[in-house]
Amino acid sequence: MTVKITRQKYERSISSNSPRISIQRLENDIIELGRIGKNDQDGGVYRPAFSPADMEARKWLTHKISEARLQPSMDGAANVFGLLKSKAEKKKSFLVGSHLDSVPCAGVLDGPLGVLAALECLRVIKEQNIPLKENVELIATSDEEGRFGGMLGSEAICGAWSPDRIQKARDIHGIYLTDAMKNCGLDPMNILSAQRSRQSMIGFLELHIEQGPILYQKEIDIGIVESISGLFHWQVVLIGESNHSGTTPMLGRKDAFQGMCEFSGEIPRIIEENGTDDARATIGMVQVRPPSAHTVPGRVEFSLVGRDFTPDSLEELKLAFRKALSAISRRRNLMFEFEEIAKIMPTTCDNAFVNIIENEAKNMNCSHMRMPSGAGHDGQFFGRYMPAGMIFIPSLHGVSHSPDEWSSLEHIEMGANLLLQSLLQIVGS
Amino acid sequence: MTVKITRQKYERSISSNSPRISIQRLENDIIELGRIGKNDQDGGVYRPAFSPADMEARKWLTHKISEARLQPSMDGAANVFGLLKSKAEKKKSFLVGSHLDSVPCAGVLDGPLGVLAALECLRVIKEQNIPLKENVELIATSDEEGRFGGMLGSEAICGAWSPDRIQKARDIHGIYLTDAMKNCGLDPMNILSAQRSRQSMIGFLELHIEQGPILYQKEIDIGIVESISGLFHWQVVLIGESNHSGTTPMLGRKDAFQGMCEFSGEIPRIIEENGTDDARATIGMVQVRPPSAHTVPGRVEFSLVGRDFTPDSLEELKLAFRKALSAISRRRNLMFEFEEIAKIMPTTCDNAFVNIIENEAKNMNCSHMRMPSGAGHDGQFFGRYMPAGMIFIPSLHGVSHSPDEWSSLEHIEMGANLLLQSLLQIVGS
Repeated sequence: MTVKITRQKYERSISSNSPRISIQRLENDIIELGRIGKNDQDGGVYRPAFSPADMEARKWLTHKISEARLQPSMDGAANVFGLLKSKAEKKKSFLVGSHLDSVPCAGVLDGPLGVLAALECLRVIKEQNIPLKENVELIATSDEEGRFGGMLGSEAICGAWSPDRIQKARDIHGIYLTDAMKNCGLDPMNILSAQRSRQSMIGFLELHIEQGPILYQKEIDIGIVESISGLFHWQVVLIGESNHSGTTPMLGRKDAFQGMCEFSGEIPRIIEENGTDDARATIGMVQVRPPSAHTVPGRVEFSLVGRDFTPDSLEELKLAFRKALSAISRRRNLMFEFEEIAKIMPTTCDNAFVNIIENEAKNMNCSHMRMPSGAGHDGQFFGRYMPAGMIFIPSLHGVSHSPDEWSSLEHIEMGANLLLQSLLQIVGS
Repeated sequence: MTVKITRQKYERSISSNSPRISIQRLENDIIELGRIGKNDQDGGVYRPAFSPADMEARKWLTHKISEARLQPSMDGAANVFGLLKSKAEKKKSFLVGSHLDSVPCAGVLDGPLGVLAALECLRVIKEQNIPLKENVELIATSDEEGRFGGMLGSEAICGAWSPDRIQKARDIHGIYLTDAMKNCGLDPMNILSAQRSRQSMIGFLELHIEQGPILYQKEIDIGIVESISGLFHWQVVLIGESNHSGTTPMLGRKDAFQGMCEFSGEIPRIIEENGTDDARATIGMVQVRPPSAHTVPGRVEFSLVGRDFTPDSLEELKLAFRKALSAISRRRNLMFEFEEIAKIMPTTCDNAFVNIIENEAKNMNCSHMRMPSGAGHDGQFFGRYMPAGMIFIPSLHGVSHSPDEWSSLEHIEMGANLLLQSLLQIVGS
């Protein structure tokens, strides 16, 4: 992608007096961390929450924090922190960071970019002795990718885990969270101890790749997140009648698969009629039963994930999906059931933070736009607890959750410097 | 279901002089054989080809054949025979029977009905010393349900197996035919020795349950099969692009699943425009990749089985399916591939046999209709080798391949008596 602003203009914009991050150091850190959990065969990073690679990454980061002469710690949910104290002897902290865990076969930026950029910001502040009016804490959350449901680390900090939820949580392969944590030498019940009081935290800033194609296609350097999409995740079952595919006439069939396909065809209409312009709905996981080429499918199970940015439009989408499922089932003599297995409300980013980031982007001569985040982020939980802000940089070709995930070094540098300037606007004295 | 003809009328129609089968003996045999391979938990019969239960059933039948003073034998493909010789010292035989193997979780009639009704016919002919102008052979074929692809027993008799095909054949679980046969103490290469010369066989008759709803819904006692459907079995792959379901706008997606659903919606139109009234097409086996609720599916694989009764209409269906796949793929920026993994040509039953069966049904005062067979049968291969005929009786609720598969005893008796009368019309002297 072409970086639309001229390099010179951006260079000039950061005056010789402004503190700035070292892209060399940041690049080295990204490459070094990206080796942990890397599979040489497919080139992907495998650092699912509470895997040995995830733990190794947390150890690596703790070492880096110490090297930078910040105060390292890890809480009961395996969130790693690096504290930089204000000389003003404050008890509150401002959090800056992202997550360390990855989906299977991930790239090296989704999460680590925000953690390592925050580490670099704190290094610069420390080295240059920049005065702070508040403590700043680097945070590297755990299980943001939801191996065990939700976003474990940030939810634990916000007090959203109960002993019952800890006991029951399993991953897609049926592995219990409790077993995964014990294998890492961690006590699962300590998740509860990760909760922090609202009074101990002032706010949260995160730099992240967009993971979508908008900035890349529009050739814009910086996305300033105004809101994070909410979602509902349904597990839908359609039940018809399995029958011999040769002897059962086309018209007499109760074909659950055909019912699902008709429903799938209604998704664009339902989104257009009931959602905002940024609404999405996706059928991703599908099981057709019985698994036989010569049998009319009597049962299908599928996931339906709807996402939108207002509670009302999420409700309207749900109602429209229910109506469509009901009408199709009646017409095709099928039965349908659905279960809501997850629901996350949309979150709005802090308006003051949005303005600060926008101003700093302007000062830095970066092209920028306000935008919603279709993907979920820790800010979704933090944003209900304290003011939160997010900065996006473009994802090459809009690709993410893939070894091909990348962003240009120019954008990584811009994003990290914008994070630093915004942070200093908020907590610099 | 109501048996439409009055019992009295049917009773009168078989005059005291006509030979007739014993429904008590036949019922006992069905119940006894139905116990072999029965699973008490789900009530289903599990007698897949070359399983211990399948072999036990063949031993049981051989014993029954001996008891009836017929000449038992088993060929290299595990087809079991029971020879009743004509006094005319002929070298040729007329074959009558069906198959003994079952799908997993089957009922007790699909296959065994035709075998046991044929056994009963031969018992009656033998007991009553009815003169025959030709030898008659009971046949119980092996692997008609296609555990190892195609219809092993009847294809072996027709010489359609090669050493290479024997070596390569595997079931859905990856078990090799050679291993399965060796476990039964059988030599796989002996399949080749099962081939019989065209000159040794005169024709083939089979009684079978319809396995579909037509006779049951129309309340007709007897179906006279005119043709057996051909089929093509495609494995289709649609390839798009996996992407984050939250960040990827609805319009920019290359959603392979949505492509499949649109194609599925075209099936009724394609069938109506290009097939005969009895054409069918079914998508039965489906895999959506990656299996993640939060990812736009980048790849789907699915089976497409088309069935029809003329070679031309099968070709027209194929062309139309290809066009639809191609158009949808172009429009949605997907790629598609397909492989034809099976192809069976439609077969016509012998017209003289159809007329004989029809006449006998008329004489017996059974309501009857000519009909196509949507399901595949051994007659499909035998019919290209020698004249073949098939009689259907109604399946209760049209159900088959299920423990609920059943037909009324009245229809079982009618079917067996019609088989006997038709057989005697053809080979009685």
